[in-house]
Amino acid sequence: MSSKISNSANSWVEVSKKSDFPIQNIPFGVFQSPNHSPRVASAIGDFAIDLKVLFEANMLNGLGFDMSDFDTNFLNNMMRHGKSGTRKLRERIYDLLLDSNIELQSNQELAKRVLVPIQDIEMMLPIESRDYTDFYSSEQHAFNVGCLFRDPENALLPNWKHIPVGYHGRASSIIVSGQDIVRPKGQKKPPTAEVPTFGPSNLLDFELETVFFTYQGKPLGESIKTDEADDYIFGMALFNDWSARDIQGWEYVPLGPFLGKNFASSVSPWIVTLDALEQFRIPGPKQEPKVLPYLEYSGDKHIDINLDVIIQPENGEENIVGQSNYKYMYWNMNQQLAHHSVNGCNICLGDAMGSGTISGPNEGEYGSMLEISWKGTKPFKMSDGTERKFLQDGDTVIMRGNCQNSDVRIGFGEVRTKILPAND
Amino acid sequence: MSSKISNSANSWVEVSKKSDFPIQNIPFGVFQSPNHSPRVASAIGDFAIDLKVLFEANMLNGLGFDMSDFDTNFLNNMMRHGKSGTRKLRERIYDLLLDSNIELQSNQELAKRVLVPIQDIEMMLPIESRDYTDFYSSEQHAFNVGCLFRDPENALLPNWKHIPVGYHGRASSIIVSGQDIVRPKGQKKPPTAEVPTFGPSNLLDFELETVFFTYQGKPLGESIKTDEADDYIFGMALFNDWSARDIQGWEYVPLGPFLGKNFASSVSPWIVTLDALEQFRIPGPKQEPKVLPYLEYSGDKHIDINLDVIIQPENGEENIVGQSNYKYMYWNMNQQLAHHSVNGCNICLGDAMGSGTISGPNEGEYGSMLEISWKGTKPFKMSDGTERKFLQDGDTVIMRGNCQNSDVRIGFGEVRTKILPAND
Repeated sequence: MSSKISNSANSWVEVSKKSDFPIQNIPFGVFQSPNHSPRVASAIGDFAIDLKVLFEANMLNGLGFDMSDFDTNFLNNMMRHGKSGTRKLRERIYDLLLDSNIELQSNQELAKRVLVPIQDIEMMLPIESRDYTDFYSSEQHAFNVGCLFRDPENALLPNWKHIPVGYHGRASSIIVSGQDIVRPKGQKKPPTAEVPTFGPSNLLDFELETVFFTYQGKPLGESIKTDEADDYIFGMALFNDWSARDIQGWEYVPLGPFLGKNFASSVSPWIVTLDALEQFRIPGPKQEPKVLPYLEYSGDKHIDINLDVIIQPENGEENIVGQSNYKYMYWNMNQQLAHHSVNGCNICLGDAMGSGTISGPNEGEYGSMLEISWKGTKPFKMSDGTERKFLQDGDTVIMRGNCQNSDVRIGFGEVRTKILPAND
Repeated sequence: MSSKISNSANSWVEVSKKSDFPIQNIPFGVFQSPNHSPRVASAIGDFAIDLKVLFEANMLNGLGFDMSDFDTNFLNNMMRHGKSGTRKLRERIYDLLLDSNIELQSNQELAKRVLVPIQDIEMMLPIESRDYTDFYSSEQHAFNVGCLFRDPENALLPNWKHIPVGYHGRASSIIVSGQDIVRPKGQKKPPTAEVPTFGPSNLLDFELETVFFTYQGKPLGESIKTDEADDYIFGMALFNDWSARDIQGWEYVPLGPFLGKNFASSVSPWIVTLDALEQFRIPGPKQEPKVLPYLEYSGDKHIDINLDVIIQPENGEENIVGQSNYKYMYWNMNQQLAHHSVNGCNICLGDAMGSGTISGPNEGEYGSMLEISWKGTKPFKMSDGTERKFLQDGDTVIMRGNCQNSDVRIGFGEVRTKILPAND
């Protein structure tokens, strides 16, 4: 891991104590504006760091990168340089921002072009994912779903504690924070109905998740072991895996979710590197029964990430409807990646791997309206006096996340999506 | 559709009556050889038609294409020109091959460079698919699976005749004919076992399928109607959707197949255009109960395609183990595409859409060893005296397909894959 970046470091760029993007974070994203073609950036405080301009100014020399890594719509080119390459790049950006470093600091004209106020730019989808896999790795979420749809006595299915259960999702409909979604239409058949009907989903839901993105993996036929997995993980983001519960409920037997999910998944624009999260590693839950050898791992592979999910009604104020934490994952990313590739499935550059909904053990810590309203039986009371069983047109769903200790706060920013009414 | 191409036409290139690639076919693929960088091609008889050379020689002028459409590893660039573009290209190639046309015929030096014996080249994966969806649209297959794993009295699940059931597969592990696969390893738990175990799959199976590939669809949030679907379908190929039944059986509840499928799917190298298949359209089965309006369609949208699946043991001879037909599909491609996008899911250029295993109503017409051996209870007797319940190391699985009437035969070639033993 990266030991160069110090919690006590300060930058010559002013950063608020509450910022998600101190000099210790250095996330990666892509932005554009009327004055900027799409380009790769990092962030500090309220500024994007324009890496295209920084590269043009010869400030990123000697790291092995070229212009096509930064003058592009996605982080994928940059990620081709692998963990050692992106780590060197992140450390170089850190150096340039240190208060003791005058290289950029002393060139006011250049610094002004490099530091672009985030409020003036449009953040774009950061990574082009060819394949997207969603896991189902939070025990409390799986338990809650089991209670709601099956039997509280046997809420977890027999395979759940043996396998990091996952399924393939739709890569094309991953969208970035700020992009609206249209309420999906589809086939539904409530248990009481005789025949299915067609129309807008009545049970539109969010799923509070994180997602990690991969570097290029091994060739088809080879596997990534749990103790190799960190080398294949670039970083993490917040992820809202939209779900239409009524469409999903009718379609999902026997081959899993399809149209109930693939209309959209929303991702936050800044990818926080695994290196930046390293100091927030914590032990995971005891896994009992014992997992098979290929799923065993050593070291602390879980991460303490605070996660909030918020509903903001049209022209209304924010209501926190759930506060969870990535530490509630039963299966960690190393296990997920080892499982995903144990059959020889090839993991590729930019693959998106969702955590699955992350719910904590207590009420108030649930990651979906399905759980929060307990399948509609316990409506959530909003500050404006309205109630929510599921989501309404005009609602904006916001997810925020951060890691915090006494020294530093490493944040993810937010993923924010407004729901538009279904098309006629 | 294309009316320019005549069944009575002949080419100045000699083509055997039994060839899959008469002048009426004009499929598209990508090849390379020690003397050829990867490039786009068509085929006639035993020859690939080098479209890069043809374009360089100004024989494809005025159609709107440029060199990057042909001097490339995939058909995707060419497919950006949409149905009208690729149709014009196909018709131009047809013209150049007509016995009455001397443009290419009269230039022997050029013709020799354009026509490359297929036996001298390596066919490559023709299309780069970002998303891959597999349907489950053959009634007999769904019925057989229901009988084997559930109840013959209620073999079809309640949603099956209302929804073209589908799920997302893994795009990265789609491979081309000729590429070997390694027997996958994974977690399995036979119903009688107390705990799951890890090891090579013992129940490795093929699935006899076709696949269609799409042009660029509509933006996220919009839908493709059944009567628009033809405009978004480029063409079809043969498809072997490999399945490890023991891995699949333990993992698939509740989110569907994952590692039991995503280790490989094999595709034939030549994409037969929908235009070339038009004269083999036939009516589909009566759909009862009546489908919802968004799944209604007009005209003949099913296709009569003969499909064979063959097992060839190591150093042995070919054994036909199943003979099916694409006409046995309950749901057609137009319905599949309309369903897939009815919730606003965006269909993209190069998406792969598998049919699902295609089984006919009679024994001998089944499209998987699961059905052929009836879950291992009726082993298939091979010509060398051995038996097959599922596939063995060293077996090569070959699928072939063609459409045939009294005038013409439009074939798909084959998809051929050998099974190597699991890695240590």
